[in-house]
Amino acid sequence: MVVFVGVNELLSMVRARGPETFISGLVDYVEHDFRRWTAFDKTPRIASHSDIGVIELMPTSDGKLYGFKFVNGHPINPKTGRLTVTAFGALADVKTGYPMLISEMTLLTALRTAATSAMAARALARPDSRTMGLVGNGSQSEFQAHAFKALLGIDRIAIFDIDPAAMDKFEANMAGSGISIRRAKSAADAADGADIVTTVTADKTNATILRDGDVGPGTHLNAVGGDCPGKTELDAAILENASVFVEYTEQSRIEGEIQQMDKDFAVTELWKVLSGKAKGRTSRDEITVFDSVGFAIEDFSALRYLHDSLSGKRRTLDLIPDLDNPKNLFGLLSIEKATLVA
Amino acid sequence: MVVFVGVNELLSMVRARGPETFISGLVDYVEHDFRRWTAFDKTPRIASHSDIGVIELMPTSDGKLYGFKFVNGHPINPKTGRLTVTAFGALADVKTGYPMLISEMTLLTALRTAATSAMAARALARPDSRTMGLVGNGSQSEFQAHAFKALLGIDRIAIFDIDPAAMDKFEANMAGSGISIRRAKSAADAADGADIVTTVTADKTNATILRDGDVGPGTHLNAVGGDCPGKTELDAAILENASVFVEYTEQSRIEGEIQQMDKDFAVTELWKVLSGKAKGRTSRDEITVFDSVGFAIEDFSALRYLHDSLSGKRRTLDLIPDLDNPKNLFGLLSIEKATLVA
Repeated sequence: MVVFVGVNELLSMVRARGPETFISGLVDYVEHDFRRWTAFDKTPRIASHSDIGVIELMPTSDGKLYGFKFVNGHPINPKTGRLTVTAFGALADVKTGYPMLISEMTLLTALRTAATSAMAARALARPDSRTMGLVGNGSQSEFQAHAFKALLGIDRIAIFDIDPAAMDKFEANMAGSGISIRRAKSAADAADGADIVTTVTADKTNATILRDGDVGPGTHLNAVGGDCPGKTELDAAILENASVFVEYTEQSRIEGEIQQMDKDFAVTELWKVLSGKAKGRTSRDEITVFDSVGFAIEDFSALRYLHDSLSGKRRTLDLIPDLDNPKNLFGLLSIEKATLVA
Repeated sequence: MVVFVGVNELLSMVRARGPETFISGLVDYVEHDFRRWTAFDKTPRIASHSDIGVIELMPTSDGKLYGFKFVNGHPINPKTGRLTVTAFGALADVKTGYPMLISEMTLLTALRTAATSAMAARALARPDSRTMGLVGNGSQSEFQAHAFKALLGIDRIAIFDIDPAAMDKFEANMAGSGISIRRAKSAADAADGADIVTTVTADKTNATILRDGDVGPGTHLNAVGGDCPGKTELDAAILENASVFVEYTEQSRIEGEIQQMDKDFAVTELWKVLSGKAKGRTSRDEITVFDSVGFAIEDFSALRYLHDSLSGKRRTLDLIPDLDNPKNLFGLLSIEKATLVA
């Protein structure tokens, strides 16, 4: 039987530990996997585009486990009460090819994105960073805030969203979090004086959320929202004057902020910084950018973390036949039904 | 909520209709989709190989629905009581990106493979074909036999497997099917005088199950077992002297019997025959070969058929969050658990 983790189970787990503890544990898994980056099969995600959205598969394997995520991106969905991004995925045993776990990954993707952002910032931001500008206060924003508090001790956040209701929602959700929140008047105002600036907007356009002059010396920019062709958030001039770090160069040149730059624009893969093979920040005044698009290994780490976190009796699915004689698949049809029902 | 069809549900459906009625209905869906072949996004399957097996994702979309299958191939699995091939898959709505159906596909793959084989034979074999040689009597063999009986009226089958227990199993499973069965002494003996020869063996090697001289004039060869790099069943000389039909040329040159041939070896895509854009069999004495490897559109058709066949109350999974405010994903964490449990 294959274990199933639905929305309700995952919510129970995150509530029981608290989001910051859950995310901190997840960071350990993502970082462990980034440090053994070369052990993984890697491929850019396989996308099926339509006029109004995209459906993608994101597989990877470390030779022992295989994981993949199904994820959609439909910016128009909220108009009909649906989520822009939903996801689910599976973990399988490479030795047998059998699936072990099917899980919801809408919530898990928000958690792993926040975990990866904070992991990158811990490696790239100034160690004394305590303030963050947070531009875009949609579905991912609170997860980002909790992750940065948990990993870097961020305790003051300036928020901005073109939709005031999104800022209201953020403030309501973060009440009691111990983070002091300021409502900024613009993206530039949110970035003003911030040690770290996170951009996590949703428009599927080449937007310029921040201009070069908006970002002060020594800032770490956590650029999360630019994550598919034709969807960017940053002024190209910011990238020209910064050190840019990416997950997987081949995919980021298609999907990230660096799709605006020449094909030979210098970037450093984050795993090299985490494993000591490349330098991160080299001075207090340098601007560092994590041009995040989300990569399959992060989902793999999240599924692995989830699988290792399961305890007690779990829900299971009869997804794979269990046969006395594995060469007699047809025989299933002649077995009495009563003996099969789980 | 996403509908879930497990092994038990699918078995109930196939038992209720009988395998031949179920397969005949499935053929209608596969044929409908092959006839609108150009409407589909097509890509060779995305494979992750290990020393002992492979895990693959097979996605496709017609612009309205999106489907994918997860499938493994591990020839060593039966030694530990597991199936060589297991599969599951999903169907999603392209307009919203939301998954609609998650289904077991181990059984469904055997059914769709048999449906596709019989569909091809109905288009390519001599119309008066009534006898079949069936080489390889493993997991797929009974499904093939039922499909050929249902679609072509095949009522005499000569079987051969290097494992006599497989032949025993086939005979036991087919008792009462109305098909008369002869145990052949060799693959060549099974093929001798047969109107149609189906090869569906499992060895992951370049085997020569049949030699050129084993196949008489006018035979239709349904070559199912050669379906991944390094795994073929037929003598190249058979292919040289036959008209060869494939599903998707780009994938078949990698995985099919024609991996043995030059890159410019002439083949015809089956959808062209089914939609009247290419000729099938041109004479009674011609040897036709359907070099089947299995393609994503067949799985898509099977998921579509399954989805359309569902009625009454179905099992559902809480795979996707259902939110009052789709921009407030984090808000899920603060909702009382009791209100969420389905």
